[in-house]
Amino acid sequence: MHIIRFIGENDRVCYGHKYIDDTAVLLHGHLYSGPKTTGEKTRVKKLLTPVEPAAILCIGLNYHQHAKETGAKLPKYPVLFMKNPAALNHPGDPIIIPPLCMDPNQVDYEVELAVVIGKAAKNVPAEKALDYVLGYTIANDVSARRWQKNSGGGQWVLGKSFDTFCPLGPCLVTTDEILDPQTLQIKCILNGKVMQDTNTSDMIFSVAKIIEFLSSCMTLLPGTVILTGTPSGVGFVRNPPVFLKPGDTVKLTIDKIGTLSNPVV
Amino acid sequence: MHIIRFIGENDRVCYGHKYIDDTAVLLHGHLYSGPKTTGEKTRVKKLLTPVEPAAILCIGLNYHQHAKETGAKLPKYPVLFMKNPAALNHPGDPIIIPPLCMDPNQVDYEVELAVVIGKAAKNVPAEKALDYVLGYTIANDVSARRWQKNSGGGQWVLGKSFDTFCPLGPCLVTTDEILDPQTLQIKCILNGKVMQDTNTSDMIFSVAKIIEFLSSCMTLLPGTVILTGTPSGVGFVRNPPVFLKPGDTVKLTIDKIGTLSNPVV
Repeated sequence: MHIIRFIGENDRVCYGHKYIDDTAVLLHGHLYSGPKTTGEKTRVKKLLTPVEPAAILCIGLNYHQHAKETGAKLPKYPVLFMKNPAALNHPGDPIIIPPLCMDPNQVDYEVELAVVIGKAAKNVPAEKALDYVLGYTIANDVSARRWQKNSGGGQWVLGKSFDTFCPLGPCLVTTDEILDPQTLQIKCILNGKVMQDTNTSDMIFSVAKIIEFLSSCMTLLPGTVILTGTPSGVGFVRNPPVFLKPGDTVKLTIDKIGTLSNPVV
Repeated sequence: MHIIRFIGENDRVCYGHKYIDDTAVLLHGHLYSGPKTTGEKTRVKKLLTPVEPAAILCIGLNYHQHAKETGAKLPKYPVLFMKNPAALNHPGDPIIIPPLCMDPNQVDYEVELAVVIGKAAKNVPAEKALDYVLGYTIANDVSARRWQKNSGGGQWVLGKSFDTFCPLGPCLVTTDEILDPQTLQIKCILNGKVMQDTNTSDMIFSVAKIIEFLSSCMTLLPGTVILTGTPSGVGFVRNPPVFLKPGDTVKLTIDKIGTLSNPVV
C-alpha cells in the first residue's frame, strides 16, 4: 500500500491511499496497527510527511562509492548521527537556505532510502529485521557542509538539522510492496540533471544489518525513521562543487516509492 | 513550582507538585500552557521523567574545566549532538550496562543541567532567551566512551544513546524559581564519593547563549530538552579511569532542583 498523510477537507490531518490527481481514499485505524481502507474518496489539500518520526536516526558513509568519493575509510560499524525532527519538511515545500549557510555556499543534497520502524525492535537478528519495518519512503538529508564539519566541532548533527533540512515523502510504501530493499534504483535530479544514480545494492550495511546493529544498542521504537545513507554524486566533492541555491528544484526518486520534489529558496 | 510526572492511582500518568512522602498534589491543564493546581492530594506510585522530550539536544565541551581535563580546544560555537529519546530513564530506574559496553568497561557518568523549552523559539536573542524556557531539570548524559569515540566513527550519538543512558528528573523546576541558571552548584556523587562539583558559572556558553545560537539554526519546539554539557570530574580522564559497574549508585544534585539517583546494573 502507498500511504500518504495529508490535510484534507475541514483542514483535518488524515491518512489515505490511492492518491491520484489531488484525491485519495481515506484510511482509518492507527498507522502502526494496520490502517484499513474506508473506500471513501476525499480531496487532498496538502501533502504532509507520511510519518511524524519519534526520532530520525541517520547512517553516514553507507554506500561504497560515496565513501570512496569523500576519501573516507570504510566504517567498521554503521556510523550513527541524528537529525532534529524540527527539520522535517513536507513534499513540495521549500528548502530554505539559512543566512548562516550563505557565505560561503555550502548546502548539499543527499537522496536516501528512509526506513520507518513499525514495531519496537531490540536485539533483532538480521534475518528477522525486516519484520519490524512498516515501510519505506524517501528523504533528502540536506547538509550544510561547513557546519557539518569544522564549525560543528566534528559533530554532524548541527549541519544536518537546520529548519527544512529533512524533506520526507511523498508516501510510505509498506513492506509487502518492497520485499527486498537492496534492489532499488535511487536518484537525485537537480534542475533536470541527474546528480546521483545508484542502486541500494551498493550499501555497505544493508537495511537488515543496520536494524540488527542499532537494535543491539537501543530499542527502535515504532515511528523511528532511519535514513540509510546517501550514494555517490553529492555536490561538495564535485569539481567545481555544486551547492543548492535559490531557484533550484531537487527531485529525488526511488524505485517503487515515487518522487520527492522540493524547491530551494 | 516543582512539577513531577508520575504514575498515580489507577495507573494513570499524571502531573503533580508538592511531592512529599509518596504523595503529590495533582495538576491539571497542559504542561506547556500553564498547569494549575487542583488542590487534590494523591498517591505517587512511580516517578517518571518530568517531560517526554520532542528531541534531546546536547551541547558538548561546555565547561571550561571539563574542556581542559579532556585536552580539547575551546569550541568556537556550541558543539551539538543528540541523544535518542528511546534512551530516557526514569528517576530511580537502573542504568543498564549493555553487553557491547562491557569489554572493556567504558560507561561514564555526566551530570548536566537540562533546559526544557516551553514555547517555540526561532532567532531569539540571548537577552530574551530565558523567556522561552519552561524550566530546568537534571540529566545524566551516560556515555560509552569507546563507542562515543573510535567505534562510532567520530560521531558521539551512538555512545550516548544506548537504552537507559538518559536518566532525567526528578522534577521540572519552573523559571520563577531559578531566575539565573548560571549560579547553580552541580554535583555528581558516585557511591557516596563526590566526583563532579562545580558551578554552572563555569559554562563556556550560557543557557541564554545556547538558545540564541541554536534558535538561529533551528526552531526549538516546546518539549525540546537541551543538555547543557557536563563539568569537570568525569571518569574516563581520571588516573586510573573510573567507569560505572553493577552495584554502583549515581546521585546527581543541582541547587534548587534536587537529586536524581539511579542504580547501575
